[in-house]
Order: sequence, then structure tokens, then C-alpha cells
Amino acid sequence: MDIKEIMEQMTLEEKAEVCSGGDFWHTRAFERLGVPAVMMTDGPSGLRKQGGTGDHLGMQESVPAVCFPSSAAVASSFDTALAGELGAELGEECQAEDVALLLGPGLNIKRSPLCGRDFEYYSEDPVLAGEMGAALVRGVQSRGVGSCIKHFACNNQETGRMVSDSVVDERTLHEVYLAPFETVVKQARPWAVMCAYNKVNGTYCAENRLLLTEILRDDWGFEGMVVTDWGAVKNRALGIRAGLDLEMPGGTDRGTKQILAALEDGGLTEGELDLAVENVLSFVEKAVAGSRTVAPDLERGYRLAVQVAERSAVLLKNEDGALPLAEGAPVAFIGDFARDPRYQGGGSSHVNSAKRSNPLDEAPAGVVFAQGYREADEEPDRALIDEAVAVARAADAAVVFAGLPERYESEGFDRTTLDMPAAQNALIAAVAAAQPRTVVVLLNGAPVTMPWADDVAAILEMYLPGDGAGEAAVSLLYGRANPSGKLAETFPMKLSDNPSYLNFPGEDDRTEYREGVFVGYRYYDAKELPVRYPFGHGLSYTTFAYSDLALDADAFTEGGELTCALTVTNTGACAGEEVVQLYVAPPAGMRRRPVRELKRFAKVALEPGESTRVAFTLDARALSYYEPLLHAFFAESGAYGIEVGASSRDIRLRATVAFTATRSLPRAFSAHSTLADIMATPAGAQVFGPVFDRMVAGAREAAGSDDVEGTRAMLAGIQLSSLVGFGMIGEEQLDGLIAQLNAAQTE
Amino acid sequence: MDIKEIMEQMTLEEKAEVCSGGDFWHTRAFERLGVPAVMMTDGPSGLRKQGGTGDHLGMQESVPAVCFPSSAAVASSFDTALAGELGAELGEECQAEDVALLLGPGLNIKRSPLCGRDFEYYSEDPVLAGEMGAALVRGVQSRGVGSCIKHFACNNQETGRMVSDSVVDERTLHEVYLAPFETVVKQARPWAVMCAYNKVNGTYCAENRLLLTEILRDDWGFEGMVVTDWGAVKNRALGIRAGLDLEMPGGTDRGTKQILAALEDGGLTEGELDLAVENVLSFVEKAVAGSRTVAPDLERGYRLAVQVAERSAVLLKNEDGALPLAEGAPVAFIGDFARDPRYQGGGSSHVNSAKRSNPLDEAPAGVVFAQGYREADEEPDRALIDEAVAVARAADAAVVFAGLPERYESEGFDRTTLDMPAAQNALIAAVAAAQPRTVVVLLNGAPVTMPWADDVAAILEMYLPGDGAGEAAVSLLYGRANPSGKLAETFPMKLSDNPSYLNFPGEDDRTEYREGVFVGYRYYDAKELPVRYPFGHGLSYTTFAYSDLALDADAFTEGGELTCALTVTNTGACAGEEVVQLYVAPPAGMRRRPVRELKRFAKVALEPGESTRVAFTLDARALSYYEPLLHAFFAESGAYGIEVGASSRDIRLRATVAFTATRSLPRAFSAHSTLADIMATPAGAQVFGPVFDRMVAGAREAAGSDDVEGTRAMLAGIQLSSLVGFGMIGEEQLDGLIAQLNAAQTE
Repeated sequence: MDIKEIMEQMTLEEKAEVCSGGDFWHTRAFERLGVPAVMMTDGPSGLRKQGGTGDHLGMQESVPAVCFPSSAAVASSFDTALAGELGAELGEECQAEDVALLLGPGLNIKRSPLCGRDFEYYSEDPVLAGEMGAALVRGVQSRGVGSCIKHFACNNQETGRMVSDSVVDERTLHEVYLAPFETVVKQARPWAVMCAYNKVNGTYCAENRLLLTEILRDDWGFEGMVVTDWGAVKNRALGIRAGLDLEMPGGTDRGTKQILAALEDGGLTEGELDLAVENVLSFVEKAVAGSRTVAPDLERGYRLAVQVAERSAVLLKNEDGALPLAEGAPVAFIGDFARDPRYQGGGSSHVNSAKRSNPLDEAPAGVVFAQGYREADEEPDRALIDEAVAVARAADAAVVFAGLPERYESEGFDRTTLDMPAAQNALIAAVAAAQPRTVVVLLNGAPVTMPWADDVAAILEMYLPGDGAGEAAVSLLYGRANPSGKLAETFPMKLSDNPSYLNFPGEDDRTEYREGVFVGYRYYDAKELPVRYPFGHGLSYTTFAYSDLALDADAFTEGGELTCALTVTNTGACAGEEVVQLYVAPPAGMRRRPVRELKRFAKVALEPGESTRVAFTLDARALSYYEPLLHAFFAESGAYGIEVGASSRDIRLRATVAFTATRSLPRAFSAHSTLADIMATPAGAQVFGPVFDRMVAGAREAAGSDDVEGTRAMLAGIQLSSLVGFGMIGEEQLDGLIAQLNAAQTE
Repeated sequence: MDIKEIMEQMTLEEKAEVCSGGDFWHTRAFERLGVPAVMMTDGPSGLRKQGGTGDHLGMQESVPAVCFPSSAAVASSFDTALAGELGAELGEECQAEDVALLLGPGLNIKRSPLCGRDFEYYSEDPVLAGEMGAALVRGVQSRGVGSCIKHFACNNQETGRMVSDSVVDERTLHEVYLAPFETVVKQARPWAVMCAYNKVNGTYCAENRLLLTEILRDDWGFEGMVVTDWGAVKNRALGIRAGLDLEMPGGTDRGTKQILAALEDGGLTEGELDLAVENVLSFVEKAVAGSRTVAPDLERGYRLAVQVAERSAVLLKNEDGALPLAEGAPVAFIGDFARDPRYQGGGSSHVNSAKRSNPLDEAPAGVVFAQGYREADEEPDRALIDEAVAVARAADAAVVFAGLPERYESEGFDRTTLDMPAAQNALIAAVAAAQPRTVVVLLNGAPVTMPWADDVAAILEMYLPGDGAGEAAVSLLYGRANPSGKLAETFPMKLSDNPSYLNFPGEDDRTEYREGVFVGYRYYDAKELPVRYPFGHGLSYTTFAYSDLALDADAFTEGGELTCALTVTNTGACAGEEVVQLYVAPPAGMRRRPVRELKRFAKVALEPGESTRVAFTLDARALSYYEPLLHAFFAESGAYGIEVGASSRDIRLRATVAFTATRSLPRAFSAHSTLADIMATPAGAQVFGPVFDRMVAGAREAAGSDDVEGTRAMLAGIQLSSLVGFGMIGEEQLDGLIAQLNAAQTE
């Protein structure tokens, strides 16, 4: 395809047409120009490819595919290599089904555990979400198909998602909510970005030039296509001007007419339209170039799904070696989810599984079953509980499979509670009271409260583990696989502890992100709040020791790098994997910053007794926050803590590095600034220096003093406003002087 | 004085001159016009009248006067009658000293316990602050002198107070921070209001027409004078136009020149200036009319100071009858504060006490003393502690007098910690370990952490109790007076629990009030946080039972009233006073509201075994929040909880009342509004009714149905946005329809 030539041949109407899809899932074909239609399909936990051209609402059954663990689970692996393998497998499936663009991954930050779509997102932490997303995108795109990251931006709730306005301050927007998108765009160059339904700071994402062009393209260098979320377009011409290329779904001439009308009335220029046309055609070109004939291999996909589930599960608690279970021992599997596990989320990511496993079918000899609750139950069923208790009491151990029914969480609505159904909580409490070796396996898309957490022996969080739920659960329970996941989000003690609690899901279609950058553990740590399980927490059947943290320098400067290395040792009796986490603890500065922030992580596999050296490289960005005065990331000079540990609240090694910024912060001067503050900045000294010198001379003359330095020091302590009182300047001059100083600062 | 005639005789220059003071503390005299100079003096914990015309900075020693307990203490009395007596006494002292205006009380809400000036303010609760303030103002003004409420508005910190911008949303501003001012202006008609130094939402209070004119005069009906905080003027002409009448301190011609220049260049009209002139002259007129010759009676004032201190002290804890102490028993008084108590705050409210008492001098026989710590100490002095422990161990009980040294809290700076000096905490811990009957008497202006709270037998919070500190402390300790105060603010477990913690004192001269209306207990209750001692908490040497809550109706309507009555009984062995607190618990509605809010309170005195009936009358305002869509206070229809108790976390009686609003809330419609939502409002039915009728008719025709109601019900469930999908309206019409609906709503 020669895009330049095609565009020259295109009529204005064809240019308008190419900016909308041809049907629910395809771009529009132009036979006379040799431009084919290419297909997009929901993801990324698996392909949701509808046959034919898609029905009116995109709701019909999709082709059989592999359902992989949800992103909430994948993030818990903290394993970018695994995310890459998963992406590559998804890419192969896309090729097999002739799909050119996988609509995923979702990179939105988990602002509240109530968000109905949290299971589709990675983390409350922007570094983890960005790294996992970049790895998945690289994997998908390594197979010649594209990945479309979504939902850009601040689509952190389902309530009113088509209309609600996410009100976010500039620092928080960049530092928390945009950061994962920035990482993926810069590292993995995704083919496409999907704009969200909602508004950000008063402007619909679909019409938001700041987001779609100034930040995405101008600042981050994005060169792909921007596509709407399905149905997100409001004013099509405003969208084109903002940087929105392709409207989906297509199949009508509404968008075309709107574009042509705008061209007519001057609301849009052909040059603006050409940018969008070129981006859509470039996407089609990449799709055509990447297309290969691949035979589907759903069995290979299923095996990978099992492996990802095993490596993503998080062992939250394991007292007295309750896990692993002994093969062949009498064990009770309890709960509806033991024979029909909840394994995927609801909504557009829903996959038509080709093959599934469930725990009961995979269970070894010795396992007996009791239902305990019905998935549909809200209130406890005493008879089912009594039966389960009897079965549990008679066994060596009880494993309760529990979690959230699909009606509790889905795309389209938000949760209103973190509680599991009372039927399940009552069952767990009753079983735990009867059987000291009670294990809970959780199947859920997002955190739940655990009133029974202190009463059970072990808890294995599997999230929504996909088709391999049964095989993975049994492997982990019996120690054939060793849990190695870590929480990608905090499990709070209660809902009201959440930082967004008083401002979620907002009022009157407006959601103010008043907690600012204090999302997730950034909030719990700053507020010194107890949590049920902290960010980064996860146990193993073995143990790990951390030692010998060494920095390659005591200090580094903006533009330079620092390498931190440490030793991890498997001190237990079996092989296992550990996620080593590096946090940066910033010094006190002008802005309030989190106590510590995850900046690097690595997953290492170790045999019993084996040690390995893990090294991380940090740059200035790893120490930075987003400074609104600079409109950029920035780290103040100072002493930064380097903290390495097994979770955000299990820091094992600490060191300090001195950092020197080469830029200076344009501190705003005010009437309360001291003369010392002003003279300490280059701009301040330039503007105010002559005045200060005259003051010093005058004061020395008045006092008959020879002491220049002493006089300077004495005068340096006074405030700008005092100059008025001392008659040095008129009151009306004060504001002008302050404005002059501040202007000089930002030059 | 005939103000109209005086103004007619005044030159333009004289009009300009009258708007600035004549010196540091006086208005300007105009002999030829018969306008005298009248004096203003800091308060309200006592007079701080400087002799002569005041020095350049107003810093010299003031005349001897009575130092009453600080406002933080007075508020803890929950006793409006007592506040009225205190006001009247202050009014008498003003008359005796020829002072026309007392600069107080301070009505600012305690947003953070770190605010250096919190001791001068009443409460974290706007109802309590307003009622106590109104009572004091009525008392002062009953004696023919004026009261000047301050600092208007949102002066909730000392850090950067001359320049910082308090950024507060409209609802929070009215519902929390302005509410006490509104109450006092409407109930007590203060002679003057003092504008604060800081900005509110970007505009200096001294130039803030919204605050000084639109809200204060137009909405609340204020008819008095607005005076600057000393030195708060920025642009004098802007100030006059905004509604700022008098600039203080005076004594220069700077203000006059600025006003004349603005009149010259059109920045100000004579009509605008006349408003200010009239307000200043009216103040002088009231001062002249109210002036009486009164002989000072500082002894009577001192007796009242003792009484206020006794009735304001809060018994936070009293286990196993540790208090009261037995007269004559061997008791150890420990701590520097036992012989030299901290009794008043630092800054402009500082009083030159004529007479003072201290606990050790007032102590009965049997009391021995150990110093324990020096006020200046930060770190524990082991020798002093060992000596104190020995003395404590040898006695029947130990009373440690502790709290905050003056260097820890004052006007002019904010605290950075809630901790008391380590020297004092270590002493208390050591004494408590040696003597089970350890009592702590606290002398401090604001909450402190109490790491030893669980280890001591009793805690008596006296705040800064004024000149009578010694007599009051001994009376309370020995049961000659029975504690009856209740906390006017929450004592949190730790600083980081505070709602403003992440946004105090702001950054870059800007403080965002991100916690919104969730200040104090409104936050701790909503977030379900444990606290050390809750708002409204306070014990007595006797006990009280609550019973028989009765409402005079099950329901009431906007414009009507509800009376709630209940019985309180003294169930203990001695006479005492109880503060009965009525909270309203609103139903869930469009806006997030606090769990409960104090709306009424009453202090009742009861002999042992005596009962009394307490009645409260509620109106719609008591159920209301401030609704930004209406720019007014509003209560939605629904079931409101009426909760009566002995503290915000000790609710003893509950009832429910159904409230019906007569106004309807102009809910903003959006693309997500259902047709039912729209048709449920009068405005919606008017605009959308004809369209809806056509839809129903069309649907019936298509389905061949006769069922009008069924068809209406079916269609009512769909969303406005679906009309586009169904082809009922064009997409471009949707926004117009929504705008039309919303416009109709707010008409």
C-alpha cells in the first residue's frame, strides 16, 4: 500500500468515510483503492471474535477461544516475561482468526476497588501497570498484529461512564493516571490507543486535544491510530481536530456526513482530516503487512492459560504449613466454585471458552465434596453449611472455594460493597470453626473483605484465573506449583479506608479525584493505616533472604544513573520464585509526596539454597514527581531512600543516595518570601540583587558599620513585605516586584 | 451624631480619611464635625488594651486585665448562658477602659489541630462555634460596646497566612466555614466583622466582594462595619468596592491617598466610598451612644474566670473513681505546670493578667510537689523523673500537670506535631508505672497525642484556663466542682488520621480543602476511624441516663418545625451538669453527607436522682446541607435520623422523622438519565412530555397494543441516549435536548 498515492486518489467523501468503521468490528474497505477491511476484537484475556460482520450491538456469541487469566491476575505475577509470552500467544490467536488489532490491554489505574471493571486492569501502581502492559503489547505485536491500549484516560469507574467528568489535578493526572500509558507508548509503540467514554477535566476524551494530541503525540511521540471506545464519539469534527482518527462501531454514514458538513462550514480543514486518514490507512497497512496464515492451536493456549494462572496466584496467608496439601490425604473441597469456578469477568472482555477445567474434576484421590452454598445465594443456607461442616470435620483439611459471583462485578456497573455474599462468609466461618486446617481459595476480580481472615489457616487469591482454573488451583494446593504472585493492589481492612471512599463514584456526573496522587498504598502508607494485605505481599512454600544491598555510587546527578544490586537467597526447602521490589522514598520537599513508590521489580527463580544477585538501574525519572510549575517530571536535590523488599510493608534492605538536580524549581515568590530565599535563586539575585546591595549599603551607613557580611545576613532574614513597612518600596510596588521575580524565575 | 448631616459636610478627603484608623488602635477623630476617635482592642479571652496611642507594631505591654479561658476552653462548656455572662463581663471591662469594640470572638473552624491559633477558635463544628459565638457577642454588646467577629473567612492556618489561598468548594465554604459567621451575624448582629489576611478561592478576603458584600450583607443582612485584620489591606480601592470599610492600623495617609487616587482615575465612585463612610460613622455613633462610665472590677472578673475554667474542663477519663481526690490525703502534684501553669495563648490575644492562681498555691494540706520536668525541656531529665516517681510512689495519688509549652503553639506559626515534649510524656509514663492512681491535668490549646492514655487512671483536659487555672484545677480535682465540659473537637489517635493531613498547610501558598465538608468528626465517623476521644465526649463525677425520646410528629414539611423531647436523669450520687447533644443523621441522597451532624445541644444541671425534660425544636435548616445547584441550604425529602446522646459516639436515643421538601432539586440531566427520571420532575415533564406521549403512541401502534400504562412503564426505563439509537432524535439534537431540560429545571 502506498498511502500517499491512495490519499491523492481519494475523494473528500472517501477520506471522511475511512474515519469510521465499515461495520461493528471492521474498518471500511475501498476496493477501487486496494484498501481492505481489517478486523478488531476485544481482549486481552482472550479473543472475543464475533463471526460475520457482527450484530447490531456486538452481543452475539463469539468464536471459541482460550480464556486467559484476567489482567488483575496477570499483574499479580509481576512477571513481564510471562506477560510477553501471553501477548505472543494472543497474537498467534489473532493471526489464526484473521484479527488485526486486539483491543487491550486496559491500563487504567485501580482508583477504587469498587470499579466494576477493575478485573480488566492491572494495578493501583502506575509503574507496575505500565511495565506489565508494555510487555503484553510487545508480545502481541511480535506476531504481526496490533495492540490497542485503553481506556485513555481516567476511566476509573463504570458509574455514568458515558458522561461523567473525571476531575484530576495536573500532577495527579501525569504522575498516576497517564503514567502507564506513557510507559507503554514509549516502550512498546502500540499500534493504537482507545479513547475513553468519559470526560477529563470538563472535556470528553473523544474531543480532548490535550490528551489525544498534545500529550499522546507531541509529548510521548505516539505515531499510531486513535480509535474511539465503541460509541464514544460526540461531535465528530471536534474529535478529528482533537486527534481522534477512527470512529467505531461503523456501518452508518452518520460520521461521514458530520465530517463533510464540518469541512463545508469551516469547522474542519482537509489538512486536519488528512492526519486522521493517514493514521487509519497506516494502521491498515501494518495489518496487511503483518498478516500471516496461522493454524489455531487452542490446546497450546490452554496450557499457557494454566501456567499463567499458576504463576499469578497470590498466597496471602499460610500458617503452620497448612499448604501444600498431601497427595491422597482426605481433603474436603467445599463450595459451588469448586465444581464451577468463577473464572472470567463480565462485559466486553467475555470469552467463549473452548476448554475449561474445574478444581473438583482435577482433584486427586481423597477429595470429597460439599456444596456449602449456591452461587446465587445471598443468605446462608444452614443445611448446606451443616453438611459442609460435617464433611470438613471428617477430613484432614478443608478447602473452601469462594469469591464473587459474576452479578457482583462486571463492566457496566460498579460494586457498592467489598463484602462477599453472606452465604459464603458464613460458610467459611463455620468450616473454620470445625476444621483448623481450613484453606480458602478466592475467585474474584477485585479485593474483598475477609472477616474470617484471622480464623483460617491459609488463603490463596486466584483472581479470575481463566480456563485453567481447575488445574492451576489443584497444582498450587498440592505443591506441584509453588505460588509466586504478589498483590498488585492493596487489600484494605474495610471499604471506608479506601482513599477515594468519600469521592466515589462522584456526584451529579462529576468525580473529583480529591485524594490526588495518594492512590492505593501511597495513601495507606501516608495515612499510616492498617491494611488486610499490603501491595506487593505474597508468600511462597519456600522462604527468601535479602542481603548485601550495594549502590554503585553514593550520589548521582540528573542525567546520570545509579545501579543498585542485592542478593536474594532461597532459604527454604523447595524451589520457588520471588518478586524483588525496589521502592524509592523521597525526601521532604515543596510538594507532599508518597512515603515510598515502587520503581523497579524483578522475578527470580531459585532452587533451595541458591542465591542470585539482582541489579536495578535508576535514573532521575525514578526519583521524580510531576511538577506543575515545570509541566514536567522533576526530582528535587536531596537524599533519597532506596528500599528493597518483599512487599511495600516488608522492606528488607535500605540505602540512601544523594541526588543533584540540574534544573532548579521555579519557586513562586510571595510577599512572605525572605530576601534570602530570593537571593538564593539565580533569577532572584539578578532582579533583586541591585536593590539588596543598596539596602546593605544604606544599613551600613546608618549603623556606621564596616561589616558587609553581617549586614547582608541580618537583612536576608526579612520578608519582602517588610520592605514596605521599612519604607524601602511603596506598597503598590510590592505586587509588581513579586510578579517581576516570578516572571524571571520561569524564563 | 447625625450621620447624614456629617457626610454632607465632609470633604472628599475627609471621607477618604475616615476609612483608615487614626493610630494603631483608634478610628480617626474629626473635631470640626464632632466625630470622636473610638478605640478597638484585642480579645476575647481578655482585654489587651495598650496605653496611649499604641506603639508602631502594637507590641508593648497592655493594661492589667482579666485573662479568661481561651475560646477552645469556653467552647468545651457547651454553655451558651456562660458564654453570655463572659461576654457581658468583657463588655463591662471594655466600658471601664473606654474601649468601644472588642476584636473577637474568632469563629474559624478547626480544620487541623496543627493550626497555631486553634486555641482562639471554638470548634471543628459550625453549629457549636456559631452558638457559642452568638452568645458571647450578645453578652458583650448588652453592655453598650461592640464585638468584632473574625477572621472572615477560611483563615484556618498560620502558615503563609498573609498570602495563602484557601481553595474551598462552594458547598464546603457555606456548610462548614461560613456557617458560624452566618449564625452570629443573623442571631447577634455584631457591630463589626474583621476580614482575614488570606485569599479565598483566589481573591484576598480584603478585596472579596462575594464574601464582604454578596454573602455578608446581601444574603445575611449584616449592617455593621467591616474592618481589616491589622495590615490585611492590599489594594485599598478594590477593598472599598468589595465592601471593606475601615483599614487598620491607621496613622498614615497611605490609604487616604489611594482612595483619592482611585476616585480621580475612576477606579472608585463617591457612592461606593459613601457606603464605607456611613458604616464607619455608624460604628462611631453606636460607640458614642453606648459609652458609659464604669468602674473596673477585676476581682469580679477573676471570680468569673475561675468559674468559666471549672465549667469548661473536660474529664476525658476517670477509672475506678480516681477522681475526685480526698481532701487532706497525701497527693503528689508533679510538673512545672503545677506551680506555673500554661494558662493563655501567644500572639495578639495575649493578656496582661492582673491576678493569677496556680495549683500548688491552692492545694490543700497533704499535697507534696515534684518538678518532674522543666517547661523548657524537650528530652527527659532522668533525675527529675526519678525524684517525681519516688514522690508519686509515696503518695495515695499523683497528679501530673502537663501539656504544651507556649513555644509549641501561638499565633504566627502552625504546629508540626501533636506530640507533647518527650520530657513530659516520659515523666507521665514513669509516674503511671509507679502509681496506679495517676491523674493527668492537661494545659494546652489544642489536641495532643497521649501515648500513656491507657496507663493513667484519669485525664482532665483544662485547655488554657486563664487566670483562675490554679483555683479551678484544685476545685475540680477535689470535687468541689464537678467537671461538665465536653470536647468541642476530636482528639485523634495520631496526626495522620486528621482529614486535612495530606493537604495541610498546603503547597506554594495554596491550600486545597480537599476533605470538603468532612472536617472533624464528620470525617472520623464517615471513615469509621478509631479516635482517642470523640467530639462531644466528657465525663462527670456523677452519671446520667437518657430516656423517653418523643417527637411531636412523625413527619414535617419544609417551612414547618419538629419538636423532640427527652428525659435526662442524674443517676449518680452527686449534683452535676450534662450536655445533651442532638445529632441529625441524613438519608442517602444525591450528595455525600456526614453520618451525623450536631444540630442542637443543651446543658442541664441536675441534683442526684433528679430528672428533667429537654426539648429541642428543629426546622428544615437543621436537616439541610448546602446545595450548589440551588446556591442555598436544602434538605431532600426522606427519612432523617434524630440521634440524642452524650457524645458523637455515645448515642443513647434514636428516632426517625419523615421530611418533605417543597422545593425540588434541579437534578442535572445527562445522556444517561432515564425517561422516568425526566418525567418525574415538573420541568422534565413539561419539556419532554409531548415527545414521550408521541413515543408511547408510536410504540403502541407498532405493537398493536391497547396498554397505555404498560407501554409508558416499559419506555420509562430507557435512557435519553438510547433515543438516538432508536432513531427518535438525531445525535446532534441530544445535547440540545439535555441543555433544554436542565435550563427548564433551574428556571
